[in-house]
Amino acid sequence: MADAAGASKEELAPASSSPEEEVEEEELIGTLKESLLEHLSLNLRRHAPNNTSQVAIVGSNLCPIESLDYELVENELFNQDWRSRGRSAILRYVFLKWTFCLFIGLVSGAIGFFNNLSVENVAGLKFATVSDLMLADKYWTAFGVFAGSNLALLIFATAITAFVSTAAGGSGIPEVKAYLNGVDAPDIFSLRTLAVKIVGLIAAVSSSLHVGKAGPMVHIGACIGAIVGQGGSRKYGMTWRWLRYFKNDRDRRDLVTCGAAAGIAAAFRAPVGGVLFALESLSSWWRGALIWRAFFATAVVAVTLRALMDVCESGRCGLFGKGGLIMYNVTADNITYHLADLPPVILLGVIGGILGSLYNFLMLKVLQIFTLINQKGPAYKLLLAATVSIFTSCCLFGLPWLAPCRPCEKDDCRVIGHSGGYNNFQCPPNQYNDLAILFFNTNDNTIRKLFSSGTNDVFHKSSIMVSFVASYVLGIVSYGVAAPFGLFVPIFLTGAAYGRVTGMLMGTNTTLDHGLFAVLGAASFLGGTMRMTVSVCVIILELTNNLLLLPLVMLVLLISKTVADSFNPNIYHLILKLKCLPYLEDHVEPYMRQLTVSDVVTGPLRIFNGVEKVSYIVHILKTTGHHAFPVIDEPPFSSPPVLFGLILRAHLLSLLRKKHFLPTCSLAGSDASKKFVADDFAKRGSGKHDHIEDIELTAEEMEMFIDLHPFTNTSPYTVIETMSLAKALILFREIGLRHLLVVPKSSNRAPVVGILTRHDFMPEHILGLHPYLSESRWKRLRFQKSTFTRFYRACLMWACS
Amino acid sequence: MADAAGASKEELAPASSSPEEEVEEEELIGTLKESLLEHLSLNLRRHAPNNTSQVAIVGSNLCPIESLDYELVENELFNQDWRSRGRSAILRYVFLKWTFCLFIGLVSGAIGFFNNLSVENVAGLKFATVSDLMLADKYWTAFGVFAGSNLALLIFATAITAFVSTAAGGSGIPEVKAYLNGVDAPDIFSLRTLAVKIVGLIAAVSSSLHVGKAGPMVHIGACIGAIVGQGGSRKYGMTWRWLRYFKNDRDRRDLVTCGAAAGIAAAFRAPVGGVLFALESLSSWWRGALIWRAFFATAVVAVTLRALMDVCESGRCGLFGKGGLIMYNVTADNITYHLADLPPVILLGVIGGILGSLYNFLMLKVLQIFTLINQKGPAYKLLLAATVSIFTSCCLFGLPWLAPCRPCEKDDCRVIGHSGGYNNFQCPPNQYNDLAILFFNTNDNTIRKLFSSGTNDVFHKSSIMVSFVASYVLGIVSYGVAAPFGLFVPIFLTGAAYGRVTGMLMGTNTTLDHGLFAVLGAASFLGGTMRMTVSVCVIILELTNNLLLLPLVMLVLLISKTVADSFNPNIYHLILKLKCLPYLEDHVEPYMRQLTVSDVVTGPLRIFNGVEKVSYIVHILKTTGHHAFPVIDEPPFSSPPVLFGLILRAHLLSLLRKKHFLPTCSLAGSDASKKFVADDFAKRGSGKHDHIEDIELTAEEMEMFIDLHPFTNTSPYTVIETMSLAKALILFREIGLRHLLVVPKSSNRAPVVGILTRHDFMPEHILGLHPYLSESRWKRLRFQKSTFTRFYRACLMWACS
Repeated sequence: MADAAGASKEELAPASSSPEEEVEEEELIGTLKESLLEHLSLNLRRHAPNNTSQVAIVGSNLCPIESLDYELVENELFNQDWRSRGRSAILRYVFLKWTFCLFIGLVSGAIGFFNNLSVENVAGLKFATVSDLMLADKYWTAFGVFAGSNLALLIFATAITAFVSTAAGGSGIPEVKAYLNGVDAPDIFSLRTLAVKIVGLIAAVSSSLHVGKAGPMVHIGACIGAIVGQGGSRKYGMTWRWLRYFKNDRDRRDLVTCGAAAGIAAAFRAPVGGVLFALESLSSWWRGALIWRAFFATAVVAVTLRALMDVCESGRCGLFGKGGLIMYNVTADNITYHLADLPPVILLGVIGGILGSLYNFLMLKVLQIFTLINQKGPAYKLLLAATVSIFTSCCLFGLPWLAPCRPCEKDDCRVIGHSGGYNNFQCPPNQYNDLAILFFNTNDNTIRKLFSSGTNDVFHKSSIMVSFVASYVLGIVSYGVAAPFGLFVPIFLTGAAYGRVTGMLMGTNTTLDHGLFAVLGAASFLGGTMRMTVSVCVIILELTNNLLLLPLVMLVLLISKTVADSFNPNIYHLILKLKCLPYLEDHVEPYMRQLTVSDVVTGPLRIFNGVEKVSYIVHILKTTGHHAFPVIDEPPFSSPPVLFGLILRAHLLSLLRKKHFLPTCSLAGSDASKKFVADDFAKRGSGKHDHIEDIELTAEEMEMFIDLHPFTNTSPYTVIETMSLAKALILFREIGLRHLLVVPKSSNRAPVVGILTRHDFMPEHILGLHPYLSESRWKRLRFQKSTFTRFYRACLMWACS
Repeated sequence: MADAAGASKEELAPASSSPEEEVEEEELIGTLKESLLEHLSLNLRRHAPNNTSQVAIVGSNLCPIESLDYELVENELFNQDWRSRGRSAILRYVFLKWTFCLFIGLVSGAIGFFNNLSVENVAGLKFATVSDLMLADKYWTAFGVFAGSNLALLIFATAITAFVSTAAGGSGIPEVKAYLNGVDAPDIFSLRTLAVKIVGLIAAVSSSLHVGKAGPMVHIGACIGAIVGQGGSRKYGMTWRWLRYFKNDRDRRDLVTCGAAAGIAAAFRAPVGGVLFALESLSSWWRGALIWRAFFATAVVAVTLRALMDVCESGRCGLFGKGGLIMYNVTADNITYHLADLPPVILLGVIGGILGSLYNFLMLKVLQIFTLINQKGPAYKLLLAATVSIFTSCCLFGLPWLAPCRPCEKDDCRVIGHSGGYNNFQCPPNQYNDLAILFFNTNDNTIRKLFSSGTNDVFHKSSIMVSFVASYVLGIVSYGVAAPFGLFVPIFLTGAAYGRVTGMLMGTNTTLDHGLFAVLGAASFLGGTMRMTVSVCVIILELTNNLLLLPLVMLVLLISKTVADSFNPNIYHLILKLKCLPYLEDHVEPYMRQLTVSDVVTGPLRIFNGVEKVSYIVHILKTTGHHAFPVIDEPPFSSPPVLFGLILRAHLLSLLRKKHFLPTCSLAGSDASKKFVADDFAKRGSGKHDHIEDIELTAEEMEMFIDLHPFTNTSPYTVIETMSLAKALILFREIGLRHLLVVPKSSNRAPVVGILTRHDFMPEHILGLHPYLSESRWKRLRFQKSTFTRFYRACLMWACS
């Protein structure tokens, strides 16, 4: 067997880091690393050594992760599969795929509507009760009810996340993004996670915490897509022959992408924005046909929402208002602006970019600390949630007391707080408290109020200022709690407040409406934190239903993104790195051009013969964690060694389980593959894997042989050993590979000299092998002014080792 | 030298076609083929045999075409290039790229505005003159002036296209699409083409021909991008050191994509739609950073248009109206619809799909005939243009006589024809002719009128019907004229008329406004012909400035596209095939899974040694048309033959021109590459190539040697010979390759056994080599119910042979 390189080197020893780097590590990072390593070793001990795999923080806990198989396996069995069987199977497949998209759209739309309905009713009931108590001057009781219900709701959300499905914690966008990049984690798309996500989201958002529901909706949509694409469930007896077409990661990836697009569409009632969001920020691979299918799913979401809102129009949905609840209609008919309005708008963009990147920086610091706390166990998670909830309640209830009462003009008191009378807070009738309008409300209502035009004089300068600072701080503090919620809406809210602040500070220097400033402020802050452009722009347009804003929104987004990009990466990227998810970037680091692939492949390489002994296969499967093995024909089957292809661990396990062994070392004949159906080799659902330990073989069987030829992928992608790492990475990522064979450049060598996997392209692996490159690497990173570099490295070195 | 396969086999003998297929050819196709072959052979005779290359119809004439080099060349010289030289060069590069995008946006916006202004003024002047004559009852003179000016304008447009730049003919979208797919044609992006395109477009659109300006705007935008990216001009002494960063096809591709997006944005004032159009229908490769840059360019277009329209607001731009001319504002404030309105809308989509695919079918038939005529020479082009122009003038002037005069209600006569008094046509004052409103107007104005809401009673049923039929026919007939114009607007117009017809036929069965029906009709017809989804949807929304339409527009688009897709491919695809542009599809034909790459590579393969004799290099370059050659180290430099890399023809020519030869067959030493700068190997602008004939060498020089090592790309992409063709195609297209090396599967062979190029993945080449596959291929195509299959094959076999 060749010994030049190794396949799926997840079991490798931790990459060594040079001493001077160790010294540089900060105290905090050291602590985090230790704590995580403890978990890792625990994890290692629990699993047998051959099953060790990479781990990352998925949701709110550490989980082992694997790569996904997007590559088409072309073996003899595959060629007898349905794909070559003609029209009716293809028609069935196409029909089913469209039906699934329809289903994803319908269910995502319904869940999005249900979420909104529930939040409006739960939070509305809470606010109504508290307001009634306030009107009766029972201020302490009111605070008790307010803080108590918030605490109960958040504790409930955190508890179900901690005890039922930890994968449901957080927004889920980093996990979906990693999945679409080719990283699979257990449980992220299970039915249990879906249920916890929906229920937890409603509770968490209703608890007046400074959180949103857009991120979880992406995860929920993706969940629906993945569950639909799982091909039924053997456990619950739900199987159907047609579903076998979807038992592969490629089709699931498409469905998950459509689901994610549908999720955003349902969260914001923004169908085009949903497609663009999935395209721009979530997916790593994209095809024309997929745009088309995702668009269908989001169109269905839009129609579903419309139909459900028609149902609610007659007031049968409790506190859920009339129709417009998901859309923030900016009702100003004719917003006008001219070139003279550009300077304030540009200033807004620049400051928004700076504030946004600062937000990312602070958010990451807080997340690091909170992650350490959450790692200690469920009790700590609950404690943290309780602390944050009480802090938030105090802020929301306490700060409005600072604001003076202001007299209503005409019918203002009805118009402004049109859901009820709770906006006058401590004030006498016919007066209102403008801070209470902003704090004592659901986030959706607050945004709607900030966006309203013609309300320049409703809010006092100091109130808007307090609201902005409080939003900024609460947004940063809230996201670390281990419950299901997202950070899109709080960023939106903070940005809107920031925009109003800027508008007010401009005073008479601008003629633009403050409501328009709020919209532009939200855009600039989104640009500064999330760094998306087209999708955020379209989402804002769809939310505000005003296309005339387009050029200004584009300008602000471009400026704030450019400014913020010179400080740090976008927030999802930071969270991905914090969670140690091995995300393959779409750009190439400069030092990768200096290396060839043979500089990074490490041994030992495990190879099978075309006809291999069962005991040897079992031995290799038990002692390594590799997921694919080159198959090489050696004498007597071929006089010079010939590379026949690549066989997957999962397929080997299927072969061993079926036990169609050969008594001697000979070819199996042409009908060997007929003993199997394609379904035997179907890829199991996300996060599920077979284990070699579960297969029992007798001593007699161990001495027999398997002809691997009919089951080997004869079309593996290859690179020559002198290929630069940069170009190999482009190939690896563009095609969406899991394994890439390295072939020799000359003729007198073994036909394959190594295998590259995702791991080999991770910077910390490369820099571990070639520490002298660090200097050139830092050059690039310092250029990006990344302040988190060292943390990343520590974190990645730990997780991917 | 190995002899297994061939590189860049553009000079191969025509692929043989089996006799029964020959019999099947239709008369028409036979004639076309003959006529084209005649041109081809003329072309062949004019060029030396070693320079033969593939040909296709570019613009309105046959041109030789080449592939583009998108792959990064990684050789010793490259590694000493600016990319590895640190921060300041990178900053310069980034700064320059953004500046170019800004420039592209500014210029595209300005040209778009200028085009509109010119068309409105030229056409407006014409209509005003004709109207005045009509009011004076001089009907024959009026017709004379109308037809005469139309004829003159179109003849002018056709003449400058035929005599100055044939590449400027047609919409240019197929050429841009092919360029972004990797097909380069001479002159498509030259300054001359740009000038002809702009002037010709204004003349052609002003000539009342049933054509639009969106397609040419894409070509114009792409032209600007390509000219900017050409890295200055040595001819005009316009060179600058910094521009050298852009002397490669990769950066040019990015700029062309941004330019195309900016073009659409300028044509429709639809910045988001422009980005999506470029993404969905034009580009074959896309990166996240490119969305971002294209978005910047279109944002600049939007701001530029806004600023220029502010300038025109005070009426200083002649007949150019007040601001809204590019946007079809649908002014209905509250369009309402409910689930009950869905059935008519669905019906609209279904019929729109059928009409759209029929449009494509008829358009292709007419184009085939017109192409035959145009091929005969400039005189025939002018004759054809004259015929079409006179036919159109007769229709536009003659048909309104059929409509009866209708009395104006209140101020209708002012409101409807608000640009002047020419809508009463032959009618007395205070009456109007509704057909004249639709025919006797610029296309933009007609669309605006069809889209207006609250005008259900303005148009008579029969008038709308006549208008629809006339638009349908004129649109099909007009596009074949060899002048610069597009087909987006006529399709839009026909669709709007179709929508109104449907609305009228529905009568009281629907409560939807007829203006809304016109918008939905336009969407369904666009979906039925162009088959774009997200981009058309966004463009329509941006055009009508009404987001409430979104769900209905999406639904209609989805239905019409689905219906039409079951009949034939989209219109641009049909035109691409008709023009024989070797476009690499993003899907894989089923029979490609049955073949391995070794089934399609054909010989002979030309190989160079690491140190090669000058005379041999010259000989090979003169006798083959290959564009890349594997470099293999053989004894004495390496004992077993070793694959060193791939060297490009263009780089060999640069080496020969510099004449740094070695007297003996030895390695050149480490400073060999220092005699060259990266600029020596810069890729020349689109369509420009060096020729071996231009290099003169003495007999002494011919006996010397070149060390090719420092100039060889050491990281060529490779596949093993047993790789399936389908997976090789995925690699080839996803990475954007020009050459793909085939390496052997076993150890006792030469280290490279062939090269795959774009040509090898073309269906007609594969089916020529393996005629027995035709059966399985037809299965797929019949499934798609493509009626054009045979024509394609004849055409492709001819062009790519």
